[in-house]
This record gives sequence, structure tokens and C-alpha cells, in this order.
Amino acid sequence: MFKAIVSADTLKTTLDSVSVLVDECKIHLEEDGLEIRAVDPANVGMVDLSLSADAFESYEADGGLIGVNLSRLEDIAGMADAGQLVSLELDEETRKLHIQIDGLEYTLTLIDPDSIRQEPDIPDLDLAAEVVVEGKDINRAVKAADMVSDHIALGVDGSNEQFYVDAEGDADDVHLELGRDDLIDLSAADAHSLFSLDYLKDMDKAIPKDAEVTMELGEEFPVKMHFDIAEGMGHVTFMLAPRIQSN
Amino acid sequence: MFKAIVSADTLKTTLDSVSVLVDECKIHLEEDGLEIRAVDPANVGMVDLSLSADAFESYEADGGLIGVNLSRLEDIAGMADAGQLVSLELDEETRKLHIQIDGLEYTLTLIDPDSIRQEPDIPDLDLAAEVVVEGKDINRAVKAADMVSDHIALGVDGSNEQFYVDAEGDADDVHLELGRDDLIDLSAADAHSLFSLDYLKDMDKAIPKDAEVTMELGEEFPVKMHFDIAEGMGHVTFMLAPRIQSN
Amino acid sequence: MFKAIVSADTLKTTLDSVSVLVDECKIHLEEDGLEIRAVDPANVGMVDLSLSADAFESYEADGGLIGVNLSRLEDIAGMADAGQLVSLELDEETRKLHIQIDGLEYTLTLIDPDSIRQEPDIPDLDLAAEVVVEGKDINRAVKAADMVSDHIALGVDGSNEQFYVDAEGDADDVHLELGRDDLIDLSAADAHSLFSLDYLKDMDKAIPKDAEVTMELGEEFPVKMHFDIAEGMGHVTFMLAPRIQSN
Repeated sequence: MFKAIVSADTLKTTLDSVSVLVDECKIHLEEDGLEIRAVDPANVGMVDLSLSADAFESYEADGGLIGVNLSRLEDIAGMADAGQLVSLELDEETRKLHIQIDGLEYTLTLIDPDSIRQEPDIPDLDLAAEVVVEGKDINRAVKAADMVSDHIALGVDGSNEQFYVDAEGDADDVHLELGRDDLIDLSAADAHSLFSLDYLKDMDKAIPKDAEVTMELGEEFPVKMHFDIAEGMGHVTFMLAPRIQSN
Repeated sequence: MFKAIVSADTLKTTLDSVSVLVDECKIHLEEDGLEIRAVDPANVGMVDLSLSADAFESYEADGGLIGVNLSRLEDIAGMADAGQLVSLELDEETRKLHIQIDGLEYTLTLIDPDSIRQEPDIPDLDLAAEVVVEGKDINRAVKAADMVSDHIALGVDGSNEQFYVDAEGDADDVHLELGRDDLIDLSAADAHSLFSLDYLKDMDKAIPKDAEVTMELGEEFPVKMHFDIAEGMGHVTFMLAPRIQSN
Repeated sequence: MFKAIVSADTLKTTLDSVSVLVDECKIHLEEDGLEIRAVDPANVGMVDLSLSADAFESYEADGGLIGVNLSRLEDIAGMADAGQLVSLELDEETRKLHIQIDGLEYTLTLIDPDSIRQEPDIPDLDLAAEVVVEGKDINRAVKAADMVSDHIALGVDGSNEQFYVDAEGDADDVHLELGRDDLIDLSAADAHSLFSLDYLKDMDKAIPKDAEVTMELGEEFPVKMHFDIAEGMGHVTFMLAPRIQSN
């Protein structure tokens, strides 16, 4: 049993956070909200998303599991105007999701969850450095790095208390340094890892420009990025595996 | 003899209503205004347009007939800013149309009307159901249907006094219902016909979002859609032939 | 030695004026400002640009010469917001240009100036007619001519005191006339020359719509177009060679 009403904005933000990594996903319809975990086909990028029942206008669920095509669900949500509400109701028998937006009814055929790639276990890493930045700073770093290279190093200089981004191209280089004053928060410790820019660009698309993003970094370790959605009633964690240093 | 001055906006709206169906058309230069009738090459969609002399700043004509390339004329009208006036003058001898926009003169070579597909007779149908909706509701129905199918059913449920739209895809379905309260007006009677979505999408492009559109519907009959342009001084009728039910 | 700070807007306008003609250029770092001269590969269009030291927030140079890839430098300048400042510093030893925008550092590898096409000598022509028009009028003429032809005639009718533009297509023609009242200034004398529209379209892209553009015209001679950039602290001259009359 699943029946809920949610603002189109919240629905879109939720779906966008997952669709940057995968085309289809499983959604756990828990009593206290939605849970989504997914990993991209190459096992490089993971997402762990929760959206509390409080983020909905109304919410009833009892622990079911559905499989959805994300781009189709995004297209439907895109039919709603910014402030409009979207009603969702699961028909257990037909395994279809009925979606209503102001008189418009869309019947979405669900996907068998068993046919969707297995959900990842997001590892519990002990990463020494933690940086809190605005989403727009990540966006700026990713755009600049993309001009010269297809990978990007993220690091923290523990002694100078600086978060830095490095991208080295064949001819040109990009370097961005944000000190304690430019950051929302910093737990300084030496950290440095190289990442595929393609993945970081995809994740960046889902990070609101005004979000406070907590980045956890280590030495040649994955990066974890956390941020709130739905005015704090939802939470997203991205994890990206490092690349082997190319030199 | 033909000599007229018209606002760029009115000229663009007029041309757009016809160019969604055909590339070239005949324009009747009647004493009391312009008349255009056209049918698409497959004989599925028709347009009947009249633009009164009152819609012009000045208008003089004596019953001539010209053939024009619509996209060329639209490009020229596109050179004018929203509020600007466009002067049109026919040179009978050279069969060219002289178009002036604030110092810019464009000389358009006309097409021999005999080389343009014959104008249709718009049949006088007695369609039982009549619905008056806002242009934006047609736009919404067409966009939603387009997500799942390439045809669309339009119908009226006489007993429930509802106008409805149905689109059935291989996996997903779309259904829109508008009751008496959602409609500007309704003459209820059972009606249901299936149409090609491609044509309806093209016609939708020419329907202003804020227009009041009168739709006449029957059982397995064409749909007629009427709306005003040029602040009521012009009128457009689209007619679209039904498709054979695909099931 | 070269070290300067300039607004992103001024930098972008400067680069755009040159990049419409060439991909790479030499920049003279004179004591009193920048100088750029370039000619397109076909020797048809030339640009001569100067940007005074006064156009910079700060400026220090002693006569060096650098070679740059314009689209790369434009991409970097594009990382800055409208009001932001861009710092430029030349590393003489590595022949790299260090560019800083609010914490972001970009290291641009310069090009050996000797590998860049030789700078043109802009000929000192005695052109009889001079017209001063707004940039938006050039834009309008170029767009209209582009609908019918791939070349464009620019001329002045000395006796009628009119600047005119003509474009003749296979079927349609465009003609634009601007009299003394439509022009900012006019030194009337008969002039008429035909130009490639492709080049004029490229130059038009670099001409601000609100610029006062001085055009010098002759009989079958190149056209020179001058306009200010950077609030009068920079100046651009375009010169375009005429085409042989095609009839």
C-alpha cells in the first residue's frame, strides 16, 4: 500500500539526484518515507537518498518496494507547474503507479525490482578531512576543470587549512584554493584523491547551487558528498570512487 | 490591387496558423479582408482562416489571389519588432509583393496560385458535442499524450458532462478529464474519436495559450476547433480527420 | 613583464572582436595598453584593436609580445561573472599566462608568436563617403540580406544623401535605405561596393548593438568600420575587402 501527495518541486529534486547515475532504480516505500540506493553500471558512483514522510503533503506506506524508469517519471513530474501537487497511488494488483496532476492522470507501468541492478552497500569510511562548501563552488570547480582535463583532484592541505581542486591538462592547468574564510566549515587533515570528471559533472548537476555540501575526503580514497533536499526533510549522499593517479 | 499595413504581431499569428499545415498557400485578397484555406498533403488536417480588413491599420484590395511561400513570409515578418508595422503592396505586373518594415524593403517573388494544391471545401458537419476550453488545456493534453503514444482520443461523456482525453501507450496511459467547472462551456452529448497526435501537435502550436477554443466532436468524426485571432478581428477553424481505431 | 587586472566584460568584448576573424592572435603588451592586429586566412577581413591601459584596473607592461588561443582565453573569461575582475600575469620563463578569477587560477600555455600568421598592415585608404550608424542598424541589414543572398552591397547615394544596403537573391531582394535623419552622421559622396555576407555577419557579431559605428565607403573599395569598446578606452577597426561584382 502506497498513497502520497507531494509538491512537484520536491519530486523533481528527488528524482534528479538519482537519475544522474542510473536510468532505473528501486524505491523503498517505508512507513516513515522513501529510500533509494543505487550504483552506476561501472560501480564508480553511488547515491543514497532518503525523503522523509514529512516532505509530503500526505504519505501512507507500509514497506513496499517498486522499480521505476526514472526518466519517464521525471517527464511526468515535468508536466506539473512549480507549485503544483502530484498525487501518487500504487495499484498492488496491476503493479502500476497512478499519478495525478490537476485532473491529468498518468498510469505508469512499474519495473520488476528483481530486474534492476542490486543496490549497493554504501561503505562506512573513516575519512580524515571534512569540508563544507556551497554547491555553486563545486559547480565552478567542475566547470573550470572541464576546460582542461577529464579528471580532477580534490584535496585538503592540512597545515595551510585549505581545500583545493586541481586539474592538469596537456597544455593548461586549473587550480582552485578555498581557505577557511571561503568555506562554511573545515576539519583540516591532509587529503588528496583523483576522480573522473564525468561522474563529478553528473553529480554536480543534482547539487542545488545554494546547498551546503559536506565533502569527506581522504588520501586516495572515495569522496562522500552530503546535502539536504526538500528543506531539510530529505537527504542525499553521493559517493565517488577515486581513479588511480595517472602519472 | 492590394495595399495594406498591419502590425507584425497580427501578421505572424495569421501566417503561423496556416504554416503548421502547409508550406505554400493561396491568399484571397477580398475587399473586406484576407481569406486562406488549405489542407495538408495527406488530406488529414485543414485550416480555414479569415482576417478582417478591420485587423489592419489600412487595407485596400479588390478580390485578387496570390500564392506565397509561408516560411519566407514568416522570416520577413520576424524581422519586425513586436509593435512594428508591416506594409504590403502587390505589384500586379511583376507579381511580386513589396514588404516594408521601417526603411527595410523586401521584394518577395510570388508563387503561381495554380501550382499550389487545391483549396479544400471544409465540410459542414453536424457534430453533437461542443466544448469550449482554454488553449493551454489543449496544450497540456497534447504534451501528456505525447509521452506515451502517437495518437490521442478526444471525447465527451454526455451523461457525466465531461470532456476527456485518452492516450494509450504500450506500457503507460494518460487520461485527462475536464468537468463542467473546468470548462468555459459545454454542450454535452456522447462523442469519441481517435486522432493522429502529430497533426494535433502542429495545430496546438498555432493555438494561443489564452485563446478560447471551441471544439466540436462526434462519434468517429472529425474534430473542428475554432478560435479568434487579432483581438477577434480574425478567425481560424482547424479540422482534423479521425484515425481508424487501432484496436 | 606583464601584469594586469581587468573587468571580465572588457576582456570578453576585446577577445570577441578578434575571435570573429581568427582562432589565434598575437597581442602586443605595450606600455600604454594592448594592441592586436589580425587578418583572416583568406586575407579578406582584418581587425586592428587597441585597448588603453586606462581600461584596466591596473596595468604594467614593457613591450612584450605573446601568442594566444582566443577560444581558450574566451572560455576562461566566461568563467567570470559580469562584474568580476580577471588578473593576468605573464611568466616570462615558462611562457605561460596565469589567470586568476576569485580564487580560481588558470595556467594558459601561450603559443609561439612566430607560428601565428603575420599581422596585416591596415592600408590607409582615402574613402570618400563616411556614415555613422548604430550597431543595431548594421545587425538589421545583415540579417535581412542573409534571408536572400550570400553577398551584400553597401553604398551611399551622394545626391540623395542616403546610405543604402542591397542584397539580390535568386527570387527575392532586400533593400534598406537610411537617410540623414536615420543616421548619426553622414559625409555624402557616391560609393558602392559588394561584400561577402559571411564576413560581415562575423564582424556584426562583435559590434555592440548600441555602438556608434563609423563606416568609410568607396567605389569598389574595402569598407572600414570603427567603433569604441570599453567605454571609449578601447577602439576597434574592421576592414573588409570587396568582392568582384557577380553580374
